[in-house]
Amino acid sequence: MSEQGVRPLRWVGDESQGFLEMLDQRQLPGEEVWLAMRSYQQVADGIRDMVIRGAPAIGIAAAFGVALAARAYTAERAGGADDFAEFRAAMQPVHEHLAATRPTAVNLFWALERMQATLAGSEPLQPGARVARLFEEARAISAEDLANNRRMGELGAALLPDGARILTHCNTGALATGGLGTALGIIRAAHATGKLAHVWVDETRPYLQGARLTAWELHQEHIPCTLICDNMAAYYMQQGQVDAVIVGTDRVAANGDMANKIGSYGLAVLCAYHNIPFYVAAPLSTIDYECPSGAQIPIEQRAPHEVTHLAGRAIAPQGMAAANPAFDVTPHALISGIITEEGVVRAPYFEGLAELRRR
Amino acid sequence: MSEQGVRPLRWVGDESQGFLEMLDQRQLPGEEVWLAMRSYQQVADGIRDMVIRGAPAIGIAAAFGVALAARAYTAERAGGADDFAEFRAAMQPVHEHLAATRPTAVNLFWALERMQATLAGSEPLQPGARVARLFEEARAISAEDLANNRRMGELGAALLPDGARILTHCNTGALATGGLGTALGIIRAAHATGKLAHVWVDETRPYLQGARLTAWELHQEHIPCTLICDNMAAYYMQQGQVDAVIVGTDRVAANGDMANKIGSYGLAVLCAYHNIPFYVAAPLSTIDYECPSGAQIPIEQRAPHEVTHLAGRAIAPQGMAAANPAFDVTPHALISGIITEEGVVRAPYFEGLAELRRR
Repeated sequence: MSEQGVRPLRWVGDESQGFLEMLDQRQLPGEEVWLAMRSYQQVADGIRDMVIRGAPAIGIAAAFGVALAARAYTAERAGGADDFAEFRAAMQPVHEHLAATRPTAVNLFWALERMQATLAGSEPLQPGARVARLFEEARAISAEDLANNRRMGELGAALLPDGARILTHCNTGALATGGLGTALGIIRAAHATGKLAHVWVDETRPYLQGARLTAWELHQEHIPCTLICDNMAAYYMQQGQVDAVIVGTDRVAANGDMANKIGSYGLAVLCAYHNIPFYVAAPLSTIDYECPSGAQIPIEQRAPHEVTHLAGRAIAPQGMAAANPAFDVTPHALISGIITEEGVVRAPYFEGLAELRRR
Repeated sequence: MSEQGVRPLRWVGDESQGFLEMLDQRQLPGEEVWLAMRSYQQVADGIRDMVIRGAPAIGIAAAFGVALAARAYTAERAGGADDFAEFRAAMQPVHEHLAATRPTAVNLFWALERMQATLAGSEPLQPGARVARLFEEARAISAEDLANNRRMGELGAALLPDGARILTHCNTGALATGGLGTALGIIRAAHATGKLAHVWVDETRPYLQGARLTAWELHQEHIPCTLICDNMAAYYMQQGQVDAVIVGTDRVAANGDMANKIGSYGLAVLCAYHNIPFYVAAPLSTIDYECPSGAQIPIEQRAPHEVTHLAGRAIAPQGMAAANPAFDVTPHALISGIITEEGVVRAPYFEGLAELRRR
């Protein structure tokens, strides 16, 4: 996976015996705890319970989950007859189980489809080589994600003015991806080229991905940044202290509408009002051409407990009802540009995204 | 003070010996702790440290602070010669000390000026009667605030559609005022008349006045409500589930610009985008005719610690910089109506507010 210090996933041991570890992001920045995932069920639990999060990281983890399941299946039948159809049938519920973890990010389904295609193509191989091929594909998904983020960083940083003061939401960094990050990868690239003056980090309630994770990544790398509550973004825009907003995305529809962490849509409206560009960093793996518009993107509703409690402590009266939509949809009309590893797409988005697909 | 159950302040004992108690709102909704304030310095500390908050409640507390200081001065000189000029001079630093607690809410200065005028008019009285007159004035400020809130409730509720789904920010309820509340007083009135369907309660980071205080008040009275994070407001507006936003205010400038809890400005922008009315509940005591526009309203910057820590626990990496503007300014162009106890003012605000003053 990534060569950098900060990363959400790591492989421990060799492929025949080793296991996946997830950095438990629920405990950051307080503690760095790595949890071992030895089965696809454990990987699925880790995704659902948000041990890790971030659309690309979820996709990578799911890919390793498939490889772990294939290894377990193969080990159990070692020495027996090899029946590929049986193997494929046995892997079907694995895919379904992993796919049922979180509904909004499309990278999960994209990665699972890619693993399924790899599996389908592995029929001529011996069972052991088949497992090795699946691990290879999972590693490739991770490595490509890092390379894509590097390319998005270059393309995105080129859009920014010198001395850019960037506001970002949620965590889209190394912790959310195969390395560097999507929106945060662009911010890192802008910093590396000397273009970046300052980052406003939205804390991103209720899960505090900004305060806990983005702040942690930026602070470790001494990138100038200030943490703010989500409701302060408008104030700093009004003060003329924000030159652009860059966010990631969990799914881009064919028309350019996109789902991202709750609060992104409000930021896009605020950007339109203040005439500030609103950019979306979207690797091609997040584009869902089968989804015509934002109206078709399922929005995950998470437990009210995440809103009413913080670190186990109640911050609201007992019995108080709370809502917890985890994502919102920003209509394409509010997006200034979608930054992919293959280029920056501008309106009209339907045409621009379709063009990208044809390349 | 208020006759209702929920109230921020209460007087214990008689005026000659008793003291003011503040319900420690920092500990709500977990615990109901009343703190005794026996001197004006303690009252000032209570305001600065946000034991109580809310523009009207701050004004009422400061008024009692003046009365407590006058009582202490008079008791110390009991039996001595009465020198009114000396008494007035001694009260000057009391006013200054109380005025230096929080800069944004104008009710504080309004209440102190009213107490100063009462003091000036008390020259003919005996020292004891002078103190009694000051206590009487403090009680009057509290009682009038409750009456004004009742009237604002009637006027504001009349603006709302049947089945209204109202979003509110911060706490503007009984806990913030002499009773009932300003924006929350309107919501209470709408509920009482059967017009209210639902309240969306913004949690209001960083101090969580919505989650801790507004939720507590509404939940106790079984008014249908749902707690949301501040960054979810745009989502529910987009879904067509918000019919109006009503907020309070800490200061309205002569041109109708107004300062209120951080996040209010962003809500006003979102309302304009979604074509949702944005109302401001403002007793006349919050209108500062000496302040020409929002640009002249001082915005309190509070400690970063309130953003990076919650209930003593760090939610961001150690050493992370954070900003904490406690208020923001909403330009009058984004306000659909300013609801006062004397009537609803609409654009053009400069003229409308001036007309109100002439009545």
